[in-house]
Amino acid sequence: MAGNTFGTLFKLTTFGESHGKAIGGILEGCPAGLPLDMEAIQGDLDRRRPGQSAIVTQRKEPDTVVFYSGIFEGKTTGTPIGFAIYNTNQKSKDYSHIKDSYRPSHADYVYDQKYGFRDYRGGGRSSARETASRVVAGAIAKQFLGEVTFTAFVSQVGELKLNTPYQELDFSNIETNPVRCPDPEMASAMEAYIKKIKKEGDTIGGVITGVIQNVPVGLGEPVFDKLHAALGKAMLSINAVKGFEYGSGFNGVQLKGSEHNDAFNTDGTTKTNNSGGVQGGISNGMDVYFNVAFKPVATVLQGYETIDKDGNMVQTKGKGRHDPCVVPRAVPIVEAMAALVLADFALLARGNKM
Amino acid sequence: MAGNTFGTLFKLTTFGESHGKAIGGILEGCPAGLPLDMEAIQGDLDRRRPGQSAIVTQRKEPDTVVFYSGIFEGKTTGTPIGFAIYNTNQKSKDYSHIKDSYRPSHADYVYDQKYGFRDYRGGGRSSARETASRVVAGAIAKQFLGEVTFTAFVSQVGELKLNTPYQELDFSNIETNPVRCPDPEMASAMEAYIKKIKKEGDTIGGVITGVIQNVPVGLGEPVFDKLHAALGKAMLSINAVKGFEYGSGFNGVQLKGSEHNDAFNTDGTTKTNNSGGVQGGISNGMDVYFNVAFKPVATVLQGYETIDKDGNMVQTKGKGRHDPCVVPRAVPIVEAMAALVLADFALLARGNKM
Amino acid sequence: MAGNTFGTLFKLTTFGESHGKAIGGILEGCPAGLPLDMEAIQGDLDRRRPGQSAIVTQRKEPDTVVFYSGIFEGKTTGTPIGFAIYNTNQKSKDYSHIKDSYRPSHADYVYDQKYGFRDYRGGGRSSARETASRVVAGAIAKQFLGEVTFTAFVSQVGELKLNTPYQELDFSNIETNPVRCPDPEMASAMEAYIKKIKKEGDTIGGVITGVIQNVPVGLGEPVFDKLHAALGKAMLSINAVKGFEYGSGFNGVQLKGSEHNDAFNTDGTTKTNNSGGVQGGISNGMDVYFNVAFKPVATVLQGYETIDKDGNMVQTKGKGRHDPCVVPRAVPIVEAMAALVLADFALLARGNKM
Amino acid sequence: MAGNTFGTLFKLTTFGESHGKAIGGILEGCPAGLPLDMEAIQGDLDRRRPGQSAIVTQRKEPDTVVFYSGIFEGKTTGTPIGFAIYNTNQKSKDYSHIKDSYRPSHADYVYDQKYGFRDYRGGGRSSARETASRVVAGAIAKQFLGEVTFTAFVSQVGELKLNTPYQELDFSNIETNPVRCPDPEMASAMEAYIKKIKKEGDTIGGVITGVIQNVPVGLGEPVFDKLHAALGKAMLSINAVKGFEYGSGFNGVQLKGSEHNDAFNTDGTTKTNNSGGVQGGISNGMDVYFNVAFKPVATVLQGYETIDKDGNMVQTKGKGRHDPCVVPRAVPIVEAMAALVLADFALLARGNKM
Repeated sequence: MAGNTFGTLFKLTTFGESHGKAIGGILEGCPAGLPLDMEAIQGDLDRRRPGQSAIVTQRKEPDTVVFYSGIFEGKTTGTPIGFAIYNTNQKSKDYSHIKDSYRPSHADYVYDQKYGFRDYRGGGRSSARETASRVVAGAIAKQFLGEVTFTAFVSQVGELKLNTPYQELDFSNIETNPVRCPDPEMASAMEAYIKKIKKEGDTIGGVITGVIQNVPVGLGEPVFDKLHAALGKAMLSINAVKGFEYGSGFNGVQLKGSEHNDAFNTDGTTKTNNSGGVQGGISNGMDVYFNVAFKPVATVLQGYETIDKDGNMVQTKGKGRHDPCVVPRAVPIVEAMAALVLADFALLARGNKM
Repeated sequence: MAGNTFGTLFKLTTFGESHGKAIGGILEGCPAGLPLDMEAIQGDLDRRRPGQSAIVTQRKEPDTVVFYSGIFEGKTTGTPIGFAIYNTNQKSKDYSHIKDSYRPSHADYVYDQKYGFRDYRGGGRSSARETASRVVAGAIAKQFLGEVTFTAFVSQVGELKLNTPYQELDFSNIETNPVRCPDPEMASAMEAYIKKIKKEGDTIGGVITGVIQNVPVGLGEPVFDKLHAALGKAMLSINAVKGFEYGSGFNGVQLKGSEHNDAFNTDGTTKTNNSGGVQGGISNGMDVYFNVAFKPVATVLQGYETIDKDGNMVQTKGKGRHDPCVVPRAVPIVEAMAALVLADFALLARGNKM
Repeated sequence: MAGNTFGTLFKLTTFGESHGKAIGGILEGCPAGLPLDMEAIQGDLDRRRPGQSAIVTQRKEPDTVVFYSGIFEGKTTGTPIGFAIYNTNQKSKDYSHIKDSYRPSHADYVYDQKYGFRDYRGGGRSSARETASRVVAGAIAKQFLGEVTFTAFVSQVGELKLNTPYQELDFSNIETNPVRCPDPEMASAMEAYIKKIKKEGDTIGGVITGVIQNVPVGLGEPVFDKLHAALGKAMLSINAVKGFEYGSGFNGVQLKGSEHNDAFNTDGTTKTNNSGGVQGGISNGMDVYFNVAFKPVATVLQGYETIDKDGNMVQTKGKGRHDPCVVPRAVPIVEAMAALVLADFALLARGNKM
Repeated sequence: MAGNTFGTLFKLTTFGESHGKAIGGILEGCPAGLPLDMEAIQGDLDRRRPGQSAIVTQRKEPDTVVFYSGIFEGKTTGTPIGFAIYNTNQKSKDYSHIKDSYRPSHADYVYDQKYGFRDYRGGGRSSARETASRVVAGAIAKQFLGEVTFTAFVSQVGELKLNTPYQELDFSNIETNPVRCPDPEMASAMEAYIKKIKKEGDTIGGVITGVIQNVPVGLGEPVFDKLHAALGKAMLSINAVKGFEYGSGFNGVQLKGSEHNDAFNTDGTTKTNNSGGVQGGISNGMDVYFNVAFKPVATVLQGYETIDKDGNMVQTKGKGRHDPCVVPRAVPIVEAMAALVLADFALLARGNKM
């Protein structure tokens, strides 16, 4: 399996299956001398953690990160930061319902086809549990980046869509409700809706909006590794993501150039920001903002028909403790992946000029 | 500048500015022994070429590719395929209007900020001319992949949107009209609309839909390099792209899991394909389909106010021969990037099992 | 710090300092379905372990590897293999003699210059302890490669040099003596010499010879990543290594082409093997053999003058339990690095042809 | 074929066969704003060029480099520098003697085994002609590095060995004789010896010594990508190289630690330099010096027996215009590769600290 590494210089490599001993990773390339706020790191992990509210999966996993290396006297040393998060919730569960049959819209079938067999326990490597390692590394990336801020929030659940421009929202509301929507009224509606969906044993999709502020001008490598292309890949690599758009996005296709162009102010900022803070793949100093679409979680607690390994139709039923809607817990993951992208580009940008 | 390389094993590195001597690239990793159809390669270049119809830029560039290496007696030798496309249209033009001022929503400003100065002639490295090299490599990727087919077409121009599912379209119509829309009626409407926009000296955005068929099961590396994440990055790296979605995409967020899940047939295919041919980042053998949003071209042939290098407001006007709508010429680029993604994953997949 | 990753497809990334919580790594790209012999892995670690004989450092470290992921039901799953080796010998030692002063020919000074400060405990990341992670990964690489065999042995200690061609040696003698020299008489002489050096509080250099047999034809990427170039880098990346030669090596420069050329047999094998099993950077199926030169360990248990952080001359003395000669314990490291090189090339070779 | 790229940030990718249309490359990552001395680049190419003296191959190839991109108004723009060197000496030669038979100690046999067939004309991709592209990129790397100097010279031809320490040599003599040996007397002896070997239709090996001066402290990535490991790989990737040693090298193994250690001066420099300017894989500011062993060229102009494709013994004879001794022309290649290594580490070092 290739593709366990993200980044060129600020570089995260992860390992781990849902029900192995541990998941974790190695973060390379963080410059030496960064004082680490350990509570902030664990804080982001806690925002991703199962069991944090009534509308997320009720699994109990403390998700405590242990650092093995790369930190000395509270500061990064420049050497690789090795870390692990132990899997403490490994009950000797009955996995027989997924061992020999393939859950629809899960990775079971393709893993068996690709690798010949799979660690079926809890989804193995395809479990979203892997993203906890990203949150750890992303939290360090945020600290490396200093004044750049990363804010993500839920802007849509099912058909409930927040249409207020992000500039008019109060970001301080985001963590005050379990949905992580900055509009209190909409948050309540979303929460009620997710509870209803949960009661039905069903799941629902949603959208997370990300906003990156105080971005220095000049980040992004303007051919294949455009800032928004790397950001898009980062987001699309998160489990359940189906789409990414930035700036004017899909709506922008309906505009004329004369409407879409962002006129300059004399200081190099722009009057509008249809560009989403990126021109020609390079940050221009304006806010970078984007939307990430998440499909409904595939595990529904309802009976369904599917196939087993031998191609026979079998009748089965979703079990276990799953998220009725993935977006509330995905908010810190979106932030983390955005921070990893920018940290890498910030290091690459040190090579721009003589 | 980092980021001029795409792919891990089937790997393209490109060079070149719009008005330098040549653009070109090096394609590494194509296995030895592939007989190359040179006409097919040039054919894809011709589909991207300026001047091919009344609704695209009227620049005259033959865009003839010259191969330097890696091919012997009509077959790939396994060694790097070096190639160039000469820039023949380098008139000693008056570039003064862009040399010292920054066109809105172009890369002029950020290049100057990032690198200290820039090759301003024709947009330099930020020119979409760079994508011609991708088309060459993508055409070889298509031949490497054999039975896998890559089809792209224009599905939206401004507000004119084709709502027919791709399965009901006749792909053989795509190349029969200058818009590259498979629905003849919609194609006519789009063509008329683009002509109108052109007459106004304005530009308009659009959407390209891509469909990849006969995909083997098991392509894609399921953590950071999920098939759709790599595809998304590939598309977002094309000039003017603002968004990417695959399968159910942004609309999928409104569905419940019980509606969205793709039930299996006994042969491993699925009854529906909301997954867009990808589960857990790995191809499942169903069609991979996706949408790519393109913003309106930034160069409008109208007067506008902008800033110069010293931050003074200046009055200027777009000049030159530009595309009123980029999507018709971007169709072969979308195909090429999709083919590069799959070729790379096809090689990586050789390492799946013992 | 870049450069913690080795390999392109069969890829090891390591972390860890000598006196942090643990060292370890992530091995990516090992194909799925390889049954792992865990005892063989621990066996190679034991051959590298401190305290194994009277002529190596007397530190007590069990060096037990713990696997976190990538293995299920005794076989590799294709996912990353995460592992750690805990540092159990972290006494609250007095490091003051190295905290503020720079040991000659150690990395202390350059680390402080490069990173601004360092984890001085036990050498931090520059400690050869890091190589234990390589031995783990190398042991898996050996198993992946099946019939290819990796043999390394001590062929020189100080001026004591074994001149017998490797073909005339009995490799089964290697592990029968603490020096790991296959000639029993020479082994005794070397052992006695190392003991004498140790008594003097001094150290001595040596040479390890490596032999790789049953190599398939066609491994190695023939421009920058020639088989012997990758092998050379692998060996030179081991602590204390000063030189690498393969085949006829430095002696080959004195030969004429007519003497040096390896004439073919009709089956493609060659009558002689001055090429060392590599032609044009690609394995030709003959034995790959090479020599690796190790300098004397820098830590001598004698008084010496050196500088402190402020550039003052200070009088100090080596302390602790160090190897008088590094080569006996480096034998499994040489094998491991050779195996990592070949495993990576074996995977890359799957992409040679259509 | 993988492995056509050298470097992580300052990154060269090459293409080209001996008798294709052109060889060339793409150099990425050179920071923007470097004024290029074009004559210096061509000057290094001329030092590598065939036909430059009586003791090298008499092929006539001007080896003129053409730049396609990445340079504007005499300075690097930060974008990829594309370049080509046309193959002008492609006579319709009779290659039948190598088309169907395998020259001993050449890459013919292994290419056919690895790729199924090969471009046999002039050695194809395995020809040392490929190194001309390295010389171009290396010449740019030298200019990027400014005060760091790269000096290489011939220190041994066959048994004729220069034993004078490099510090006592007058480097200004190197380019005054065709052998590129800084000792005039030894140079004459070597020249005479090479002429004698040439007359015999034979070839002979040699050693090149490299010296890098004014190296900043702190270059090199201290685990797998140690400065000397990258340097070793760089040298071993040059055609015909069989060994690499730096600092005390193979002779250092005979020293005791107390003799080998380099004591500090109060300014951080060392009294001796057995370390060869590198400690723990990181430059310490002292001279980096090393030896590179080259085998005798395999093409001898004598009759010999070998096998054809079908495994039949055939009698054949070397033809063409080949170097009797490769080291005089390899001097600029050694410098170029050393410069590429240091340029890359210089860029990576920008990420060391916060």
